[in-house]
Amino acid sequence: MKLLDGAAVDHGGSLGRARALFPNAVLPFVDLSTGINPHSYPFFDLPATTLSRLPESGRARDLTEVAASAYGAPSPANVAAAPGTQILLPRVASLIAPGKALVLGPTYAEHARAAVIAGHEVTEVGDFEVLAEADLAIIVNPNNPDGRIIERDRLLALAAGLRAKGGLLVVDEAFMDVGPRQHSLAGDVGLGGIVVLRSFGKFFGLAGLRLGFALSDAATVDRLDTQFGPWAVAGPALEYGIRALADIDWQHAMRASLAEASARLDALFGRFGAPVEGGTTLFRYLRLPDADDLFSALGERGILLRHFADRPGVLRAGLPGSQEEWQRLDSALAEWASRREDRSKGSKQ
Amino acid sequence: MKLLDGAAVDHGGSLGRARALFPNAVLPFVDLSTGINPHSYPFFDLPATTLSRLPESGRARDLTEVAASAYGAPSPANVAAAPGTQILLPRVASLIAPGKALVLGPTYAEHARAAVIAGHEVTEVGDFEVLAEADLAIIVNPNNPDGRIIERDRLLALAAGLRAKGGLLVVDEAFMDVGPRQHSLAGDVGLGGIVVLRSFGKFFGLAGLRLGFALSDAATVDRLDTQFGPWAVAGPALEYGIRALADIDWQHAMRASLAEASARLDALFGRFGAPVEGGTTLFRYLRLPDADDLFSALGERGILLRHFADRPGVLRAGLPGSQEEWQRLDSALAEWASRREDRSKGSKQ
Repeated sequence: MKLLDGAAVDHGGSLGRARALFPNAVLPFVDLSTGINPHSYPFFDLPATTLSRLPESGRARDLTEVAASAYGAPSPANVAAAPGTQILLPRVASLIAPGKALVLGPTYAEHARAAVIAGHEVTEVGDFEVLAEADLAIIVNPNNPDGRIIERDRLLALAAGLRAKGGLLVVDEAFMDVGPRQHSLAGDVGLGGIVVLRSFGKFFGLAGLRLGFALSDAATVDRLDTQFGPWAVAGPALEYGIRALADIDWQHAMRASLAEASARLDALFGRFGAPVEGGTTLFRYLRLPDADDLFSALGERGILLRHFADRPGVLRAGLPGSQEEWQRLDSALAEWASRREDRSKGSKQ
Repeated sequence: MKLLDGAAVDHGGSLGRARALFPNAVLPFVDLSTGINPHSYPFFDLPATTLSRLPESGRARDLTEVAASAYGAPSPANVAAAPGTQILLPRVASLIAPGKALVLGPTYAEHARAAVIAGHEVTEVGDFEVLAEADLAIIVNPNNPDGRIIERDRLLALAAGLRAKGGLLVVDEAFMDVGPRQHSLAGDVGLGGIVVLRSFGKFFGLAGLRLGFALSDAATVDRLDTQFGPWAVAGPALEYGIRALADIDWQHAMRASLAEASARLDALFGRFGAPVEGGTTLFRYLRLPDADDLFSALGERGILLRHFADRPGVLRAGLPGSQEEWQRLDSALAEWASRREDRSKGSKQ
């Protein structure tokens, strides 16, 4: 158990940081430091009024309707839309009075930070069963970065226990678009005492738009909407959200294509002696003793993985987005593996 | 004095609402129901990565730098950027413990709603001097909808009094881009106990992007930034914000052009017996006994003004954006004025 403070959190996805870390890297960077889909939903032209006018409340209603349907929430009244999931976190953590917040970790660090901001005493726990002792229990499902899944029936049992004592279960399903969707709680939020977070930008590859959702019982959604006020979601995010969330064919094809790419990535890492232990089809989770060395070797070749300052033996890798990116990763891994073998021979002589 | 609750607020700028209100109106609507500049900052193409990637923290820093310079804040450390001013309001009202909030009114109603959300007891007062009794004093300057100005020295004196007792002065300068800028408190926020709100979308005519700023002392800015977390501002808003706020020439020319347009609007309303009493160069404030009739007559001709349910004798009118819009307004006013004269003659016979 680790008691957490609200200190700023390090993240993947910053080319500025990458340039500072690897000043001599081959450019452009191949950014595998996030779990954002490199195959964005197709761009389309927006009418000028999307930028110039205030977002229409009718379009905001359209968005909650398609989101409810895409995510399997009971109804649009169970959907609060926000400019990104990130900005929702402190508001969601503030839905109950300050108490004992337990985060199932290790996981996405912003949850702990948000719960601290909301005044909770926050502890990271490794054991799911301990979460029953919380006022506010937070689970990322599937988990980032290791892909660990908590089954829906266990989550429902936990939620029932928390609900009975006025507690709250928050399930961050940021990567649930790629499944296993039978373990989503999106359909169960009407029960109360549950908030499910869904992130638009990751699966649809449009993280710059800032769009996220909290699914919950209607009264809780109303409380969140009240906090954000009118026009919470920008015009471009509304238009992309409505079109992409309604495009079931694209989503279906993309899930299959991501599954293929992630299998290909596992094979590639495996071939060069960097074993993949888990993840989702949007990112893979590697465990190897010389993870730091692999991170640096690839970084110097302009290929960014995600490392974790407090967990030296693991890495997270997103998916390459083009043939060129696959090839650069392949070459860099081959070079690293060959140097590794040389060192290994050297140390045996 | 009027004690306020946190009920939902009615707004201008919704064509959906306009269609429901005036189902037989001539389309397209000429929307004069907001104070948003109809002459948007010129559109430009955004790189695809603006939508696909997480916003870079380096770009967020660039934005606070140009914003500090454009608004006259002491430094970028005095600038918190957010996805619209609206979403800032409850966070700003929460900067001090629940107490007595006084709003100088009548004004933009979302301030009272936000202060109620933050737990304050909220009262609207008409007399500036009474604000000294507040823990949280809120002023819109220049005021929406009537354009009333509170001079900077009076604001500074109020701020000093509030600061001495741990209170906070919030000045919403959403329309201060069009002046009178010598009364802005942007340069004074380093003193502490002051939050100045600036709205990007109104003057730059890009309300759909959602971009707003809170200017304050560095510690308060830090508290607000912590609440919003990383990536608070979407990629498109970052890019437009950086370019437009740095474009001093455009801003200078636009101020002159808005001043001309607003004088033209006053002359037009005046010619047809609808006197303009105040406002800013982004909107005009009309007072006439038959304001309701004018609102309906124009609405039926597809021209939307802003009326206020609780203030029947006043209207707010934004600026027409094209020659065609000016002409439609001219014709509709002429028709209304002629009917009005007929009625007046009729009632005298």
